[in-house]
Amino acid sequence: MVRVLARHPQVAPVLLEHRDDTHASPGLPGPRRVACTPEAVSAEGMSIIFLATPPAVSMELAPALLAAGAKVIDLSGAFRLGTAEAYSLWYKEPHTAPGLLAEAAYGLPEFCRARIPAARLVANPGCYPTAANLAIRPLIEAGIVDRAAGIVCDAKSGVSGAGRKPTPKTHFCEVVGNFSAYSVLHHRHVPEVLKISGLEEREFSFTAQLLPVDRGILETIYFRTTRPLTAADLMAVYAARYAGEAFIRLYPAGQLPDLHRVARTNYCDIGAVVDQHSGRAVVVSAIDNLVKGAAGQAVQNMNLMLGHVETAGLL
Amino acid sequence: MVRVLARHPQVAPVLLEHRDDTHASPGLPGPRRVACTPEAVSAEGMSIIFLATPPAVSMELAPALLAAGAKVIDLSGAFRLGTAEAYSLWYKEPHTAPGLLAEAAYGLPEFCRARIPAARLVANPGCYPTAANLAIRPLIEAGIVDRAAGIVCDAKSGVSGAGRKPTPKTHFCEVVGNFSAYSVLHHRHVPEVLKISGLEEREFSFTAQLLPVDRGILETIYFRTTRPLTAADLMAVYAARYAGEAFIRLYPAGQLPDLHRVARTNYCDIGAVVDQHSGRAVVVSAIDNLVKGAAGQAVQNMNLMLGHVETAGLL
Amino acid sequence: MVRVLARHPQVAPVLLEHRDDTHASPGLPGPRRVACTPEAVSAEGMSIIFLATPPAVSMELAPALLAAGAKVIDLSGAFRLGTAEAYSLWYKEPHTAPGLLAEAAYGLPEFCRARIPAARLVANPGCYPTAANLAIRPLIEAGIVDRAAGIVCDAKSGVSGAGRKPTPKTHFCEVVGNFSAYSVLHHRHVPEVLKISGLEEREFSFTAQLLPVDRGILETIYFRTTRPLTAADLMAVYAARYAGEAFIRLYPAGQLPDLHRVARTNYCDIGAVVDQHSGRAVVVSAIDNLVKGAAGQAVQNMNLMLGHVETAGLL
Amino acid sequence: MVRVLARHPQVAPVLLEHRDDTHASPGLPGPRRVACTPEAVSAEGMSIIFLATPPAVSMELAPALLAAGAKVIDLSGAFRLGTAEAYSLWYKEPHTAPGLLAEAAYGLPEFCRARIPAARLVANPGCYPTAANLAIRPLIEAGIVDRAAGIVCDAKSGVSGAGRKPTPKTHFCEVVGNFSAYSVLHHRHVPEVLKISGLEEREFSFTAQLLPVDRGILETIYFRTTRPLTAADLMAVYAARYAGEAFIRLYPAGQLPDLHRVARTNYCDIGAVVDQHSGRAVVVSAIDNLVKGAAGQAVQNMNLMLGHVETAGLL
Repeated sequence: MVRVLARHPQVAPVLLEHRDDTHASPGLPGPRRVACTPEAVSAEGMSIIFLATPPAVSMELAPALLAAGAKVIDLSGAFRLGTAEAYSLWYKEPHTAPGLLAEAAYGLPEFCRARIPAARLVANPGCYPTAANLAIRPLIEAGIVDRAAGIVCDAKSGVSGAGRKPTPKTHFCEVVGNFSAYSVLHHRHVPEVLKISGLEEREFSFTAQLLPVDRGILETIYFRTTRPLTAADLMAVYAARYAGEAFIRLYPAGQLPDLHRVARTNYCDIGAVVDQHSGRAVVVSAIDNLVKGAAGQAVQNMNLMLGHVETAGLL
Repeated sequence: MVRVLARHPQVAPVLLEHRDDTHASPGLPGPRRVACTPEAVSAEGMSIIFLATPPAVSMELAPALLAAGAKVIDLSGAFRLGTAEAYSLWYKEPHTAPGLLAEAAYGLPEFCRARIPAARLVANPGCYPTAANLAIRPLIEAGIVDRAAGIVCDAKSGVSGAGRKPTPKTHFCEVVGNFSAYSVLHHRHVPEVLKISGLEEREFSFTAQLLPVDRGILETIYFRTTRPLTAADLMAVYAARYAGEAFIRLYPAGQLPDLHRVARTNYCDIGAVVDQHSGRAVVVSAIDNLVKGAAGQAVQNMNLMLGHVETAGLL
Repeated sequence: MVRVLARHPQVAPVLLEHRDDTHASPGLPGPRRVACTPEAVSAEGMSIIFLATPPAVSMELAPALLAAGAKVIDLSGAFRLGTAEAYSLWYKEPHTAPGLLAEAAYGLPEFCRARIPAARLVANPGCYPTAANLAIRPLIEAGIVDRAAGIVCDAKSGVSGAGRKPTPKTHFCEVVGNFSAYSVLHHRHVPEVLKISGLEEREFSFTAQLLPVDRGILETIYFRTTRPLTAADLMAVYAARYAGEAFIRLYPAGQLPDLHRVARTNYCDIGAVVDQHSGRAVVVSAIDNLVKGAAGQAVQNMNLMLGHVETAGLL
Repeated sequence: MVRVLARHPQVAPVLLEHRDDTHASPGLPGPRRVACTPEAVSAEGMSIIFLATPPAVSMELAPALLAAGAKVIDLSGAFRLGTAEAYSLWYKEPHTAPGLLAEAAYGLPEFCRARIPAARLVANPGCYPTAANLAIRPLIEAGIVDRAAGIVCDAKSGVSGAGRKPTPKTHFCEVVGNFSAYSVLHHRHVPEVLKISGLEEREFSFTAQLLPVDRGILETIYFRTTRPLTAADLMAVYAARYAGEAFIRLYPAGQLPDLHRVARTNYCDIGAVVDQHSGRAVVVSAIDNLVKGAAGQAVQNMNLMLGHVETAGLL
């Protein structure tokens, strides 16, 4: 987050410290550090705060920071689902700031750009749903997916998606040379896809798997088309929907993204392969989970909220 | 192949040399080397030959070696499909030894054990189809897959599956930190799955993807059940079908294999997760592509052909 | 340790459990588990115990286990240095079982084979010193190292050498794509090299560095020769010293080991390059830190202690 | 090279094509492409050409391009050594443009800044010598290295240092999980260190080793001090020498660089550890071999040659 902001021409980032020590880089100057309190936020006249905290901490801090006059972009899942019931169902804990849910804007600019500029509180999307919704929703809108047969999203993520905390699962010796599924059918990111792409849970099979790479998400998405279509037809649907979008890159029919192409960028790359005869289609979308899947998209939202050019600091 | 054979108690391997120089390991004694000619095979009294050659070379060598009195296990795709037409359709070249196709036995012992002992020529299965058929066929036999909705097999393989030849695709800098799909819907291993599991092409969507690991295949398989079933029900289907099989390991319901567990073994590990309410099911199967997916399964076939214990040299 | 023992023809391993839960492998049968108490050791009639514990735990358990009639091979540093003073100097804590130091045999068979068969307690060598002493001591014995100019040992280890405990240093994202020195000049393994190779501390510069691989140690050793010698001369010194040794592999002059060659073996591979004109010499030694650097060498010691063939279970 | 230039505010890069097809990135717009001929260079009015070609090609192209009025920065070894004799000794082939050797400026700005602005032809330094000279020369200038005892430079490089051409040595399966020395004592980069740091060959032992990472060089440098010094004393020598240098980062005494810190930057990071009592010192320097070790340093030289701010496009 700090590294992405450091490149932004109109931002002077300040690092708010909350309880745990932040990782220090010896010898290298970083941003100024200030305690994360409403008083400090007021005193500094901060216009916007990014919360890169667990949901429980975000639910605790957001009300106070908003009351202190700052806007908030929350990178956790605390404000992504529309109701306290949905939150407690998927996150297995009660929502402690339900009063903010109605005003929180879901920060996927390509589909929710209208509400973001005026929002005080933006819920930055999950990494998996960002790649999934950008690939799936245009197809649903176009009515070309056979929803009865279902959509499969086989998602693979780099290890940074599992957080910085060392665990047996993120130990180098456990990850290197390995590949494993860690959340099948019931990942807490699923409801973001259902909500944004307008699907029923029974229509969407999602598996989250751990790649032995540090960053990047690639999702292989399978469905059947409702009528005979080519890969070029699918890419034309995307081209029409994403005309003018700066962070969507579409591949020629039959070509597919990989992780290297999107690493350290705010792009979402999309490609498709179709067997026209049988109607089987495969779409691949790729993002950097730390950029378009987190800090980059948060800055994209900040640009919209503060009236900057949407791509400032992100190209 | 040589390393697997070296552990076998009843085998004295000889390395046949064909054209290209074989990789030498300085300082380390290897097997005896002999030119790969029918004369040498006769003179040495070799009982069985493993062909680890491209299909075109296998089609050239197999007839002569069989005529010289040896049995042959071919690790290429030359003799896996039943007809010359199927071969030319998927391999994009004519079959040059079609007279051997009828007698070639498909070497997946768990399903084709009956024909293997008496066969002169065994077609060792492809790595992807081995993991796919072991996971899919018992479910098809049990009639619990909704075939109309289709089966998705999202397959990931280590780089050794792409062969030893250095190419831009296998350069370390291209692979490390990356993940990419390289064959979507039309991989030449698809017909082996259709044939063994009894599927139509339109029912089966298959994607082959490259993992940044040296060895291992993991396949994530999605389908809908024809009636409400639990993961335990699925695992019970496997347990009934694979009773007595030495190389199938079944996981408790809800647990899934990973690549580390099968590395350097001849096992195929299988696990399942099911959403009983909606009938969505996910099965994961994992093998080592160089062992159960190649040399290990070839030795398993050799054991059957020569009357050894099926697990000799493989545990 | 358990995996190495499982291959041994004359051993039925039992897993002793001590406080922390041992990692369980679901679905896979492991060795029988017994509480690690002197009573259990007596009741089971165990002949030998491997302690894969931190030094403090080894110092606590070893006296009781020996009193219960078992022999002990300790894989920690507790009994490697000859005196309690040396231990407290390098390990920064007092020695709590100093009465056992005199009888503990240092378990590097290639140099200390005489004392091992009769020992009740064997101190299994550190991983770095194993690779260092096997490369350095023959040269010191032969009197061909210019000790005044010093010996440099630049050591690189895979991450398994840092232990199983997850830490920020062993997090996949920290290690992958990285390389770092973590102990320069003052590593606690240094005194084992000084003692076995007969060096003064000021003569020996040692750096321990972390490779982004799971297993293996490679040490690049620099020195000047006391008289003009070729690489072949150096290798002849090794060949004379290691005649009959089963676990030392010597490379032709000018060829050098790498990690792949020694992975999952009990071998120590050694090679040399020399600039005869200037007397500058480089020797490279490589081992698998988990085998010859730990469990494999422990089994080699067990074979000597129990009168088995020294290579049993290790080839 | 193209990627680094693309970030430069005062440059509009053009990609010159020479024989071999350049790798195309599908879907992504790149720089304009022009044939690499003197006519095109004149017609386009190009001010400066970067040659990222083998030495033989650089010796062929440089005279023609200079004659066409462009300045040239050569990233190969063709013009780094002062004489045709030195070139043929280390590169094992005759120099075919010896007339340019006298005017070629060695492009290590921290030590050779004076000659670069007026040079028509700059020889961009090798990656290994850049990290070595920046660490060693200040110590030699300060007279604190015991040269009689010699300097050891144990260098480790990522695979991109071996070039883009696929070879058995750069195959993913050969590199992953491995570590190997590939050039001991006689690497062709050695004479650049001898020349810039003012050493005799017998004083300098250099080993080049291959790390399983894509980018980065770390060199561990061992020597003895001529008088008792601390790590802080060493770092003070560097601080004095590098005052005002934008691309040198010095670490607090006892702290050492790693590859992550310098990845994708033009920095050279330096740290030191010393055993004051015995005079043994270890200095670690790290760079990104593709930036400070190649394209970044080339742009730094371009900035000096064209009168831009030296750091333009590099921070």
